[in-house]
Amino acid sequence: MADPQRPATPLLDRVHFPSDLKGLSDRELRQLADELRAETISAVSVTGGHLGAGLGVVELTVALHAVFDTPRDKLIWDVGHQCYPHKILTGRRDRIRTLRTEGGLSGFTKRSESPYDPFGAAHSSTSISAALGFACAAGLGGDAGDAIAVIGDGSMSAGMAFEAMNNAGALKKRLFVVLNDNEMSIAPPVGALSAYLSRLYAEAPVQDLKEVAKGLVSLLPAPLQEGAKRARDMLKGMAVGGTLFEALGFTYVGPIDGHDLDQLLPILRMLKARATGPVLIHVLTKKGKGYAPAENSPDRGHARAKFDVVTGEQKKTPSNAPSYTRVFAESLIDEAARDDKIVAVTAAMPDGTGLDLFGARFPRRLFDVGIAEQHAVTFSAGLAAGGMKPFCAIYSTFLQRGYDQVVHDVAIQRLPVRFAIDRAGLVGADGATHAGSFDVAFLSNLPGMVVMAAADEAELRHMVATAVAWDEGPIALRYPRGEGAGVEMPDRGAVLEIGRGRVMREGGRVALLSFGTRLSEVLKAAEALAARGLAPTVVDARFAKPLDRDLILRLAREHEALITVEEGAVGGFGSHVAQLLADEGVFDRGLKFRSMVLPDIFIDQASPEAMYRIAGMDAAQIAAKVLEVLGIATASRRA
Amino acid sequence: MADPQRPATPLLDRVHFPSDLKGLSDRELRQLADELRAETISAVSVTGGHLGAGLGVVELTVALHAVFDTPRDKLIWDVGHQCYPHKILTGRRDRIRTLRTEGGLSGFTKRSESPYDPFGAAHSSTSISAALGFACAAGLGGDAGDAIAVIGDGSMSAGMAFEAMNNAGALKKRLFVVLNDNEMSIAPPVGALSAYLSRLYAEAPVQDLKEVAKGLVSLLPAPLQEGAKRARDMLKGMAVGGTLFEALGFTYVGPIDGHDLDQLLPILRMLKARATGPVLIHVLTKKGKGYAPAENSPDRGHARAKFDVVTGEQKKTPSNAPSYTRVFAESLIDEAARDDKIVAVTAAMPDGTGLDLFGARFPRRLFDVGIAEQHAVTFSAGLAAGGMKPFCAIYSTFLQRGYDQVVHDVAIQRLPVRFAIDRAGLVGADGATHAGSFDVAFLSNLPGMVVMAAADEAELRHMVATAVAWDEGPIALRYPRGEGAGVEMPDRGAVLEIGRGRVMREGGRVALLSFGTRLSEVLKAAEALAARGLAPTVVDARFAKPLDRDLILRLAREHEALITVEEGAVGGFGSHVAQLLADEGVFDRGLKFRSMVLPDIFIDQASPEAMYRIAGMDAAQIAAKVLEVLGIATASRRA
Repeated sequence: MADPQRPATPLLDRVHFPSDLKGLSDRELRQLADELRAETISAVSVTGGHLGAGLGVVELTVALHAVFDTPRDKLIWDVGHQCYPHKILTGRRDRIRTLRTEGGLSGFTKRSESPYDPFGAAHSSTSISAALGFACAAGLGGDAGDAIAVIGDGSMSAGMAFEAMNNAGALKKRLFVVLNDNEMSIAPPVGALSAYLSRLYAEAPVQDLKEVAKGLVSLLPAPLQEGAKRARDMLKGMAVGGTLFEALGFTYVGPIDGHDLDQLLPILRMLKARATGPVLIHVLTKKGKGYAPAENSPDRGHARAKFDVVTGEQKKTPSNAPSYTRVFAESLIDEAARDDKIVAVTAAMPDGTGLDLFGARFPRRLFDVGIAEQHAVTFSAGLAAGGMKPFCAIYSTFLQRGYDQVVHDVAIQRLPVRFAIDRAGLVGADGATHAGSFDVAFLSNLPGMVVMAAADEAELRHMVATAVAWDEGPIALRYPRGEGAGVEMPDRGAVLEIGRGRVMREGGRVALLSFGTRLSEVLKAAEALAARGLAPTVVDARFAKPLDRDLILRLAREHEALITVEEGAVGGFGSHVAQLLADEGVFDRGLKFRSMVLPDIFIDQASPEAMYRIAGMDAAQIAAKVLEVLGIATASRRA
Repeated sequence: MADPQRPATPLLDRVHFPSDLKGLSDRELRQLADELRAETISAVSVTGGHLGAGLGVVELTVALHAVFDTPRDKLIWDVGHQCYPHKILTGRRDRIRTLRTEGGLSGFTKRSESPYDPFGAAHSSTSISAALGFACAAGLGGDAGDAIAVIGDGSMSAGMAFEAMNNAGALKKRLFVVLNDNEMSIAPPVGALSAYLSRLYAEAPVQDLKEVAKGLVSLLPAPLQEGAKRARDMLKGMAVGGTLFEALGFTYVGPIDGHDLDQLLPILRMLKARATGPVLIHVLTKKGKGYAPAENSPDRGHARAKFDVVTGEQKKTPSNAPSYTRVFAESLIDEAARDDKIVAVTAAMPDGTGLDLFGARFPRRLFDVGIAEQHAVTFSAGLAAGGMKPFCAIYSTFLQRGYDQVVHDVAIQRLPVRFAIDRAGLVGADGATHAGSFDVAFLSNLPGMVVMAAADEAELRHMVATAVAWDEGPIALRYPRGEGAGVEMPDRGAVLEIGRGRVMREGGRVALLSFGTRLSEVLKAAEALAARGLAPTVVDARFAKPLDRDLILRLAREHEALITVEEGAVGGFGSHVAQLLADEGVFDRGLKFRSMVLPDIFIDQASPEAMYRIAGMDAAQIAAKVLEVLGIATASRRA
């Protein structure tokens, strides 16, 4: 039944799995690509999500599935946010309009979702390592089949990708790495590698290659003897200046026009038939290709809210409060205007961290180091050792990439690097891979580290000021994705006393000790409890390290129960409080202590509200925990 | 007063700081290098430590300090284990025979030790990031001076170094990277980059360059006009095939004979005078140079016990028990002989992890991926996804380099990668940078992860067997540096029940719940307490995750006090036990709970015994904790 809101896709309607592509002619594959592009645009218009990256690989997706035998051959999309066309072709079209919603399809590749996703992703630059693992397994009696990694030029600049290339080039196993060069990751790429790639295709204009590629087609059907050898030589001839990859032991093929199936198909067929070692296929694509509103936007339609297909206009709910990201950026700009030692470091996320605003104001004081969290942290340590006040702004989940550098280069040396940790806690539609669940735990046990969490956007401003002022060692401030609470903002951040919490309301029997933005739900719970005559004390801890020992011990003395609340996994704030209480012998005498932390599961994509419900961290659940601890049956649960 | 045990060093005796080099002629500098080499050998013969790396950079150390103005210029040694000659030249000669001992000099560079160590190290591949930080700080009003990173070819293969090169090449700031190419890290290097470097100097034999370098000398004193330009062109002419580095935006100079001051001095002088952007100076050296017993050993004298200078023979205390490392390797070989799906992955540490033995037996099933922990983890994940049973063996402290990969590629996907975590806990002479303090915490809060610690070497064998059998998700086994307890070894490892501890002795009042090899001290403490009529219950937890809930809750019910003991930071095993006890309301009724963890300090190098004393984790301290919890005054402390 035709839906007037949806594009006509007569050929795509007949394709349910990649095997259905095998009978199609090259002409039909070209038509299929057009339909696949239209379907992708239509789907994302109703779900929101990553649009530009998928549009850039429509032809590549069709070509790879047409030439290789997925899922026997392992096709691994780096990052995975370009996988929507891939999902449509691999048995998931009927659910494509559930992307990034609770119970729906993930916005990334995911092993549990489909055998066509042999290796999931969401963080960048993992695909070559995984593909090499498959390739080596195949040679040792594991799953058979080819391994193909598709990786963007931005992702290729990460150290991890280099490590994998270095290893693959030495092992010499057959392996395909498709370098999807669109000159864009989320932001325009930085770094010397990017400039190098630009020179590569400047030296070998793609139009010249078209003829070469066409020439290959005729060679293929014949028995591959002398002809194949000649064709291979022609392919090698394409490698104009591909020496960086050749230095790493790869055969370099390219650059190829990634939107031209007349190039992609014959070259992939040839390589599938003949390659013996690792091959780097350099494909030029355009992020957002074929959809003008994406192509014409500065980020090439990277991530989109739901939008109108015709106009490209996004449907965003207006908000009354600024985002934490923006408050961080504006606070830092404010401080930097007064202190010229302040510099900022981002790992390829100037927009996501708000540091694009900082860079607009202080271009010489912003360093975008590329997708390179390890380097970002140690580079920040070097800046600090050189007398600057670096703010290293990295999402919680990506800071995991630089953990050893935090320990070894920053904490052990007590260098005053300021870590601004955005997207701390649950993140909604991006799901488990982007959750910032572990930072409180993995930072708070480092000697000399100061760990703060902002309870609201005004607190965030104070914490930026506090971090500027703190020069004795490293300090971290965490804050979540999304909008602030809408509180009144101070004109200027105040320097907080290190290791001191603040009492929000005094009450009896129960003390609720909150770390971070769950404070608003804790206060809501307190209101509800007060209405029942059970008004608790509520404290904003502000610091997970150092703890406010005096305050916490007083709370323990003066209350029957003490409950910590944090948006993080066990091992963090609550565990440090428990350690203090144990050391001080508080448990000897009995204390109803509970630590509300994120549950021991990876929470899939859902609305933030749903995620908090799953995590047991909304106001109703906090209030229920209080009643449970006090032994008061709640009507709904124990009637 | 001449010491007959020490070499005669008349020139070195006059050099206390690098400024003393400025008045020396090139001929004197050559003599100084010879004396510095002799002094280094003499010092390490009495202290033990890293010998080969330092001997390889004696001339380079002299040349860099003679040409640059340290400490104003920032000289950053990657890893730092080659820094003994540097320490001798920078005011620390009088303490050089205290290397790696408690209260003595660190075996690595260390900021707190000297202003001549502007950035400490111990883990590899951090130097370029740090140097770039200094270079950028200098341009923004921070500390002035040049930044020079000296990095080995092995370290250069790590992704982090690539990230830094990629960033430096784009920023175009003046920066010196000396690639100390000795074709050896700890083991011979692997990977395509290494092969590439070999080709580079095969194409440009160093003897030809000597003449070029000599030619430069005459040019230098003259006003640097036309002459300088010509010289620079000559230097550029040296860059035979250095395109990989040039692709990354560096000026490539080399290869240079790193033991020939007639090459090093003029080239460094020229570059110091004229360089404007990032320069890669490719220096060929020989690890262990000038000391035959080192040069002739397979690892080129990498790390040495105390030794006889004349014979090179090391003075090692014979041990009755095998090392944990060897037990791991032999157990894995035993399992692998029966299960051909078992493969092993190391990140450039085949010797340190014992996997050299595995590789000797199963060469196709060992993968040494180079200094590349990020890749090692995800490559292992790929192997697991491809149907193999990978054992990824990484020291605890280095696993921090692959943390995001453990979270994102292994845990979220529930892939059965087996993590063999050597050097877990305190490590002795290598000090704080090599301590494995955080792995229990950073692994145990990952959903689906199984975390084990071996209490002795027989347990380790069982845990290897358990990891082979466990196919439902990731599993980690941790074990310390050094020799086992000397217990009887089973012929074959038994598969342990996941999440079950074992009761070692039943007692009253107090339960001691141990996780890992501190068990032997816990049992000693129990003996001492039993002699006082206070025999405690002792349990080996075996698992930090999943916890043995039934056993722990029973211990809590049946005892007045429960004390956990682990060789790790807060946030790990004890914190998970506290979370369980809190959740189950055990604290409501009162329980004398204590969690003995590593203290909140970075512990400097010392003997293992001294480190445990500092950490408060020897048998006497454990027994004292029991008495304290029970309110029993100990004679020594409260008399």
